[in-house]
Amino acid sequence: MSTDTTSRSDTNNDTNRNGVDTATLFATLDAVKALPAAAQFQFRAHNEWQHGTHSRSTISDFFGVGEERAHEREFVFDADHPAVLVGQDRGVTPIEFVLHSLAACLTAGMANIAAARGVTLTEVRSTVTGDIDLNGILGLQPVRNGYQQVSVRFVVRGDAPEEVLRSVVEQSRQRSAVYDVITNGVPVDIEVEVA
Amino acid sequence: MSTDTTSRSDTNNDTNRNGVDTATLFATLDAVKALPAAAQFQFRAHNEWQHGTHSRSTISDFFGVGEERAHEREFVFDADHPAVLVGQDRGVTPIEFVLHSLAACLTAGMANIAAARGVTLTEVRSTVTGDIDLNGILGLQPVRNGYQQVSVRFVVRGDAPEEVLRSVVEQSRQRSAVYDVITNGVPVDIEVEVA
Repeated sequence: MSTDTTSRSDTNNDTNRNGVDTATLFATLDAVKALPAAAQFQFRAHNEWQHGTHSRSTISDFFGVGEERAHEREFVFDADHPAVLVGQDRGVTPIEFVLHSLAACLTAGMANIAAARGVTLTEVRSTVTGDIDLNGILGLQPVRNGYQQVSVRFVVRGDAPEEVLRSVVEQSRQRSAVYDVITNGVPVDIEVEVA
Repeated sequence: MSTDTTSRSDTNNDTNRNGVDTATLFATLDAVKALPAAAQFQFRAHNEWQHGTHSRSTISDFFGVGEERAHEREFVFDADHPAVLVGQDRGVTPIEFVLHSLAACLTAGMANIAAARGVTLTEVRSTVTGDIDLNGILGLQPVRNGYQQVSVRFVVRGDAPEEVLRSVVEQSRQRSAVYDVITNGVPVDIEVEVA
């Protein structure tokens, strides 16, 4: 955290608080209010099996605001199991990415919500844990396959009273796409083409 | 795909089919059968806000088989929003990681299940899509925040009849940790420390 108030005011003026371009954020909200269909998005991941439990996804193309789009570059992610789960540890396990996803979604929301409310954040850290009994996926005990409990611990610092900072976290939870998916579930359909 | 049957038999003999060490896989199953508590795992992600909607997670430590463990190296993942969602595109969006996670979990399971059944896979590709109406997270319409539908399209190739390859996908779905989390939901608790 900088104590140089000059540089802080440079990066935290009213239109760029927390690194959020609030003018563009509000303009985007107004644009979607005027044209709700602009908010229909489709995100995509393309995965290819490598070897054993190792696979690799590329993420680039998506649809939004009425047209096909792409990230500025193609992002590539490996997933694998560690040796203790009979893999070669060439990436984190698939289920660990869910924890990263949740932390990142809540944190991005907090930056936006704080900026919109005129709150300057100086630190947001979190640890997300997921407890899982692998007897489920191993088919050995009648327990669920996935996490039994996920816990998020945030450390938040900013220029507002504690109750305001807590309300930023709470509003982010209420508007988080990943929190919704993880807590409420989503229908998944699977189609298979045998080549 | 190699047509060199010598090298294929080197990498796809009975104890290393699909790159899966089936001897170790079966030994692990037996070990967990004898000591079910070994299957209690906790996975973790540590996230730190960077700027705007950009945050970064590190994933390394986890608990399993009765002790604290770590991946062979620390893995680092950035997440951000693209410019059209008022970010700087320094990573894929948090909700896109969920799609990678699902593809990777189902694919790892298929490799293991096929190996256990003596089926050699030669190709597994998938595209996972997630449809989302961002009017939810923007608070503009009474729609859910997360994906409304997730779809997985697999292309699978291997040395078994079509119905066997389809049954490998189906068994992987039935034993997938991420599929369970995404379709059924998980309780998430959030604690906040204001520093």
